[in-house]
Amino acid sequence: MKNPDSLKNKAGRFAYDGLDRVIHEKARLSVLSSLISHPKGLLFSDVKQLCGLTDGNLSRHLQVLHEARLIDILKSFEQNRPQTTCRITAQGRRQYLQYLSVLEQIVRDAATATESDPCETSPFSLASR
Amino acid sequence: MKNPDSLKNKAGRFAYDGLDRVIHEKARLSVLSSLISHPKGLLFSDVKQLCGLTDGNLSRHLQVLHEARLIDILKSFEQNRPQTTCRITAQGRRQYLQYLSVLEQIVRDAATATESDPCETSPFSLASR
Repeated sequence: MKNPDSLKNKAGRFAYDGLDRVIHEKARLSVLSSLISHPKGLLFSDVKQLCGLTDGNLSRHLQVLHEARLIDILKSFEQNRPQTTCRITAQGRRQYLQYLSVLEQIVRDAATATESDPCETSPFSLASR
Repeated sequence: MKNPDSLKNKAGRFAYDGLDRVIHEKARLSVLSSLISHPKGLLFSDVKQLCGLTDGNLSRHLQVLHEARLIDILKSFEQNRPQTTCRITAQGRRQYLQYLSVLEQIVRDAATATESDPCETSPFSLASR
């Protein structure tokens, strides 16, 4: 358990600075994932259903994402009833994809770690990559 | 922007319920990633350096991980100086790998979404998988 020299040059190796906290929050990650899969936008009620969120929770997180300019929130009327549509912005898409590249790094790091330990079977398989 | 029927059967499709909040917190994700890559354990000072955390921050998160039984914290003496070693438990390893399978799903969902939109180039490439 000595501090091996090999660790000394690895400061911040697992800091994952690119994990933007606005995106990393679980509910917001759900919302952005649903929106990147529906680039033309989704109704508030659809996002709520797809992400399993309550009205209040979703409203709060949409506000945060909107303030960070990651999504647009469009208000309109459909058959005289107000409706809210959410859409990921170009900036949101860019930042979300950058965030995902860090998630990929985390998965790769763990895959490397578990590959070097043949006693353990990983539940995710690199063979399918 | 009508609610398409196809969405109706997809309740919770992007909820990612498997994203355990204890593990998902950014600093704790860093700590667990560093520990799964060093299954024999790491000194407190090494984890701190690898994860870019302060003493206080690291202590707090180690406590949470320990209470969730994801890590062991071992106190010992080295040349009459106290030292703390952290090690991922078997349960921690299992839960972390389950968590990672959800991260993989998120990456796959986004890859599917961006593949179907040829105008956008993704910063991560499935070609290398």
